[in-house]
Amino acid sequence: MAPRLTAPKRGFSPAEFERRLARAQTIMAQYQLDGLLLTTPHNIRYFTGFDSQFWESPTRPWFLVVPVTGLPIAVIPEIGAPEMALTWIKDIRTWPAPMPADDGLSLLAGVISALPRRHGRIGAELGREMTIRMPVIEFLALRERLPVEVTNGSPCIWDIRMVKTEAEVAHIHHICQIASDAYEALPGKVRIGDNEREACRRLRIDIAERGADATPFLPAISGPGGVPQIVCGPHDRTLVEGDILFLDTGSTYDGYFCDFDRNYAIGKVSDAARRAHEAVWDATEAGITAARPGNTTEDVWRTMAKIVQDAGSIGNNVGRLGHGLGLQLTEPPSHMPGDNTVIREGMVLTIEPGMEYAPGKMIVHEENVVITVEGARLLTKRAPRELPVIS
Amino acid sequence: MAPRLTAPKRGFSPAEFERRLARAQTIMAQYQLDGLLLTTPHNIRYFTGFDSQFWESPTRPWFLVVPVTGLPIAVIPEIGAPEMALTWIKDIRTWPAPMPADDGLSLLAGVISALPRRHGRIGAELGREMTIRMPVIEFLALRERLPVEVTNGSPCIWDIRMVKTEAEVAHIHHICQIASDAYEALPGKVRIGDNEREACRRLRIDIAERGADATPFLPAISGPGGVPQIVCGPHDRTLVEGDILFLDTGSTYDGYFCDFDRNYAIGKVSDAARRAHEAVWDATEAGITAARPGNTTEDVWRTMAKIVQDAGSIGNNVGRLGHGLGLQLTEPPSHMPGDNTVIREGMVLTIEPGMEYAPGKMIVHEENVVITVEGARLLTKRAPRELPVIS
Repeated sequence: MAPRLTAPKRGFSPAEFERRLARAQTIMAQYQLDGLLLTTPHNIRYFTGFDSQFWESPTRPWFLVVPVTGLPIAVIPEIGAPEMALTWIKDIRTWPAPMPADDGLSLLAGVISALPRRHGRIGAELGREMTIRMPVIEFLALRERLPVEVTNGSPCIWDIRMVKTEAEVAHIHHICQIASDAYEALPGKVRIGDNEREACRRLRIDIAERGADATPFLPAISGPGGVPQIVCGPHDRTLVEGDILFLDTGSTYDGYFCDFDRNYAIGKVSDAARRAHEAVWDATEAGITAARPGNTTEDVWRTMAKIVQDAGSIGNNVGRLGHGLGLQLTEPPSHMPGDNTVIREGMVLTIEPGMEYAPGKMIVHEENVVITVEGARLLTKRAPRELPVIS
Repeated sequence: MAPRLTAPKRGFSPAEFERRLARAQTIMAQYQLDGLLLTTPHNIRYFTGFDSQFWESPTRPWFLVVPVTGLPIAVIPEIGAPEMALTWIKDIRTWPAPMPADDGLSLLAGVISALPRRHGRIGAELGREMTIRMPVIEFLALRERLPVEVTNGSPCIWDIRMVKTEAEVAHIHHICQIASDAYEALPGKVRIGDNEREACRRLRIDIAERGADATPFLPAISGPGGVPQIVCGPHDRTLVEGDILFLDTGSTYDGYFCDFDRNYAIGKVSDAARRAHEAVWDATEAGITAARPGNTTEDVWRTMAKIVQDAGSIGNNVGRLGHGLGLQLTEPPSHMPGDNTVIREGMVLTIEPGMEYAPGKMIVHEENVVITVEGARLLTKRAPRELPVIS
């Protein structure tokens, strides 16, 4: 299996980063922030293009300061300097980390203190769907010594990242196509009698062979006519006639995720399971239509919820029917009651209705779309309404 | 390539978790804590065995409360309940997440408030080499409403996790053997003229085929006679005669990491590069010998640092010469000046000397060991002193 040939160019042009920065600075100004303090891989990558798997090591904090005017300043461990120097970032300050007594804090405090002050507030990654990547006690100590207020920058950051650029969408589209191809090929690679773990491994290898960089998310679950949950596994359970095999993947290409699942019938499954799959497929269809500029995420939720309720849903434990995605597997907004985000052009969303049609028997379906002025455009290859069969 | 047949049983017995808990509670008592509040995948997995790739989604916080006496209490989103119920944890409280207005906080506050109070303090993941996995503003709000002090629990948690059980060591040994085999086979799969990305992909696939569950960390870098950094890449750079190709992997088996690298000569490399590789190999040998109970991490560092300095090192940007590993790619302690951790039986450590022998030409070597009463025992297959050649 050779890698898919349609890969978009890796990385982004300096012009793209300049546009991202300019737009971000407009939004920061609306939030009355003098700058953003960023510590997490995805936020730092968004503004710099810096890529590393070294985020797996929790030892050293990394920082990026994005002022409301002017260029970003990277404040990072020495170990990261050679690679950061390859990005468009020009102002790179380093310290010889790890240095437990002062792991970049003095250096960072100096940079933040020197920012032009207008509102006297900077935003940090303190709010919903974000966790700051530095020890909390060090964050609190930093906050004490700064001459500016550190406020919750998460709503501002999500406003920035929630609308994708064309180049970002091309990346997500590519990884969605890779995973779609791999899902389509799976029935040729798995048989009744294989176990979940082996099915999952074959899909993982196929996705890598088709050109994905990594697969951070690939749960696999099976059960008679449906599954009890959708976020854990695989286990050693053997696939038997009548099962539903559920697979979901967040694989990445050049930092960007897909996030969609597929269900397979193991041999012949019950009519109830088939009907439930058709209901979530129909709900997906309706969700895709509802996901258009001007509608809200709650509108999308309501459209899908009605269909699965009418089809006999007794609930599901997921808590929402889809969400944003991009540099992360899940991002705001959420299709759920109370989340009244207005859908806008450039958002990339999952459409993910699910239903438990009998206790412990859940079927969840999912596609990824980008919002255009005409409505949602599929980034994934639409799943067939009829369950694909593994025999 | 069939998976390696010597895999240890997945998961751990309830008796193992009981022993972990009892030992942890002894350590917590020494720290005068009434309990620990845990939010991160690795800490929760250590005490529960709960495994999920869903941690990739930042949307929902998860909590585990480990009291100084009695059993752990899981406070988790509904979506995780079916799988948590398969672990040895009996007390599982859930809420229908995501619920932005109160995402588990009231439920969690109730659980913590009901703990027996002796010292009036609980420990949270606030310190070095840890980042709490919940929004900081929600953590600060929680802290306000608790009737007990929330203190830095990280030193206590690292004391608990730093010494591994036999079953944990068996897991790490297995993934180290898988990666060793894949590294050994790599010269048969890569040729002069391939690029870094393709070499990296072939290694990733081979590691998966041999039975690893995931490969969260796999940087690849090449350069004439050495590399400028060791934590980023691969890039599209083509491998040419005289290069060193550096690969490092943190792959996992059942949650446990290996973390070691290998260097390859692309065709014929300079004498200086070969000598530098031999120097770091010799330093590794000395580091392995120095890593014995009673010595400190600084002793291990000094032993290796002397050898690479004598061999002409002009520095390196890594900042330390090895560290702990286990459920995470890197864990305390660090082999570096000022880290005077006393090495104890059961610790799993990397021995990782590196040197820049000319500007931009760095060679770093690494093995993984477990500390026994007699000294360090290799978990990896020792690399050859002479650079393996890709031709």
